[in-house]
Amino acid sequence: MELTLKGEKAKKAAAALAKMTTDQKNHALELISGQLMQEKNFILAENEKDLDAGRENGMSEALLDRLRLNGARLQDMAEALIQLTQLNDPVGEIISAWVRPNGLTITQVRVPLGVIGMIYEARPNVTVDASSLCLKTGNAVMLRGSSTAIHSNKAIVKVIHHALEKSDLPADAVQLIEDTSRETASRMFKLNDYLDVLIPRGGAKLIKTVVENSTVPVLETGAGNCHVFIDESADKEMAISIAINAKTQRPSVCNACETIIVHREWDGLKDLVLALQEKEVEIHGDEGVCGEKIIPAAEEDWVTEYLGLEVALKVVESADEAIVHINRYGTKHSESIVSSNPDNVEKFLNEVDAAAVYHNASTRFTDGFEFGFGAEIGISTQKLHARGPMGLPVLTSTKYIVKGNGQIKK
Amino acid sequence: MELTLKGEKAKKAAAALAKMTTDQKNHALELISGQLMQEKNFILAENEKDLDAGRENGMSEALLDRLRLNGARLQDMAEALIQLTQLNDPVGEIISAWVRPNGLTITQVRVPLGVIGMIYEARPNVTVDASSLCLKTGNAVMLRGSSTAIHSNKAIVKVIHHALEKSDLPADAVQLIEDTSRETASRMFKLNDYLDVLIPRGGAKLIKTVVENSTVPVLETGAGNCHVFIDESADKEMAISIAINAKTQRPSVCNACETIIVHREWDGLKDLVLALQEKEVEIHGDEGVCGEKIIPAAEEDWVTEYLGLEVALKVVESADEAIVHINRYGTKHSESIVSSNPDNVEKFLNEVDAAAVYHNASTRFTDGFEFGFGAEIGISTQKLHARGPMGLPVLTSTKYIVKGNGQIKK
Repeated sequence: MELTLKGEKAKKAAAALAKMTTDQKNHALELISGQLMQEKNFILAENEKDLDAGRENGMSEALLDRLRLNGARLQDMAEALIQLTQLNDPVGEIISAWVRPNGLTITQVRVPLGVIGMIYEARPNVTVDASSLCLKTGNAVMLRGSSTAIHSNKAIVKVIHHALEKSDLPADAVQLIEDTSRETASRMFKLNDYLDVLIPRGGAKLIKTVVENSTVPVLETGAGNCHVFIDESADKEMAISIAINAKTQRPSVCNACETIIVHREWDGLKDLVLALQEKEVEIHGDEGVCGEKIIPAAEEDWVTEYLGLEVALKVVESADEAIVHINRYGTKHSESIVSSNPDNVEKFLNEVDAAAVYHNASTRFTDGFEFGFGAEIGISTQKLHARGPMGLPVLTSTKYIVKGNGQIKK
Repeated sequence: MELTLKGEKAKKAAAALAKMTTDQKNHALELISGQLMQEKNFILAENEKDLDAGRENGMSEALLDRLRLNGARLQDMAEALIQLTQLNDPVGEIISAWVRPNGLTITQVRVPLGVIGMIYEARPNVTVDASSLCLKTGNAVMLRGSSTAIHSNKAIVKVIHHALEKSDLPADAVQLIEDTSRETASRMFKLNDYLDVLIPRGGAKLIKTVVENSTVPVLETGAGNCHVFIDESADKEMAISIAINAKTQRPSVCNACETIIVHREWDGLKDLVLALQEKEVEIHGDEGVCGEKIIPAAEEDWVTEYLGLEVALKVVESADEAIVHINRYGTKHSESIVSSNPDNVEKFLNEVDAAAVYHNASTRFTDGFEFGFGAEIGISTQKLHARGPMGLPVLTSTKYIVKGNGQIKK
């Protein structure tokens, strides 16, 4: 009931939004930014209710931290909104145009998707982030966050509505689903009449559930079982620096490295092991890896996303063996080769099936900001519509505009 | 069992196919073309078995005609294969490339999707068509045709395999699912481990079933409830010519017109009615339509795809009313305005939400060949990945290739 009512509202708002100019949309984002600061105390007070409930229910400190808002975090969110106004608006962009022999002119232009459904976990910042990215691209949004963040989300959406009421944009463009039951989420997976796309944001389990149960098209942002392959010819210092960076610079993210593969003839394995251990990385090594405190690797290590200071370490006879291993166990996210052998580099970049393949660089660069997109919706590990870091154009579709002077089909 | 075995084979073949050059792929298409002619009698004999069974089971003449192969039809299929060799290969195309401030160069290139699942009805020509489009774009394919065409499909795939065995391409690239039970189709909808995309080809019911039950991403080709709106200022002769063409040139296809909307002040309504009736089109008109033999239109007429010589006819007070009607009842396929009023034209082209919007031209041009793509996978009515007529690039994904000299994330 809530879903169809709000779906109807969102759909109507989407039609109005599609007509808004870039200036009108940017002005609304500025208003939201200001309103967040103006109603800061209200948001923080509501957030406190979620934190209290979380503490009562024994939520871990890590989860509480994700849930927590404070002055500095709200300030960051307000600033991100202003930065978003400075990015190009993809809507209206002419992708291509041509004239047919019969005189028809065909122009392909970018248009908003319509209504975007977002399903996410207990991070209230996603409520602002998702709403603003959708509004910038002329899309209405239906937000379904976690029950543990419901007070924060309701407060934030109320504040966004206050801002939108002062703008030319329809306030109905941002809809929060307040019923956070599993049943409602399941019904949202099949809300094809109202949703043009569904974007899950959160852990692997959430994403898997959405992908496996949705009939609404899903933009899959995904798990990263990423590899760094150090070839026989790799520069020792560079290889160790890249492997350490990919593993330890921020181990909890999807573009961090989970398995390091080393060519048997590369002369840096011992130093690599020591460097990893110096960074307190626990090593699951196969039989080719010698050293103290090496845990023998099992089959499951090749598929595990540790997301922490653990790594699987494998020794191979050739670049080919590394490629086969990656294509078998990887998640098609980000894969890197460190090598001075042009043939192996070429082979790796061509044959490894992943959203981003690297030569002599850390996998940690797979990111909308590092790629220069100025915004990031997520990192797609699917192959349709978008693959790799997703910037604003991913939230658009296209339309063919065909102009004639009476042409009929013969 | 058959699905996973053949899925495994297709997946392996896809990896090999991705490495094939355009010349190697084109050569394979030429070999298939030749082999179809060489083994013509075998294919026709097997097709006869399907036709016999169809006749025994009381299949309609229209369906038998779709199922039927003959020398001329095989010749057309063989020629289409040669034409396909002349089209650009999208794989390897560089979409964009740039250098980041830290020196990383990022290149986005087109790559094959991987394994494509095709689910289709009793048209054996789709077996050749789908296989060849997939091979041209470096994709393996799993074909699931109708049980009523199983002998024809087995024969065609056998012949394709004979040709592929003489080529550099793996014969496993084309897999026919021989178990045509519903259960197998249902399992194919969820074959995410092997299929990168699923493309249903056939009637609205088949497509709906696939869209509503698949967790594999679907390329939706769809229904067309298309409209022609004749504005107050429309040139009478042009408007009638376009409406008649859109309705009657080939009424059974998705880009044919199903509802004609006429502005109350346009002076050609009587002539339009006569012109439609002269073409033996049955008219379901609303209260604004006068004339003999007009059937009163009911709500269901606004949503009906007649796909025959019937049309709904509606009179409106304004272009706005027409736009609202189309956005409410249309299927976002192809919509046309005939008008000499630039404001209304602009409004219609911007505000009607459809894959293709037309000014002063027939909706019948929404077609990969008419758009100049040289091939057509289908016409997408979804908004992700592809919208409107789909040419070869739709069967590809992209990959980011990032080259560095030791960059690590700070």
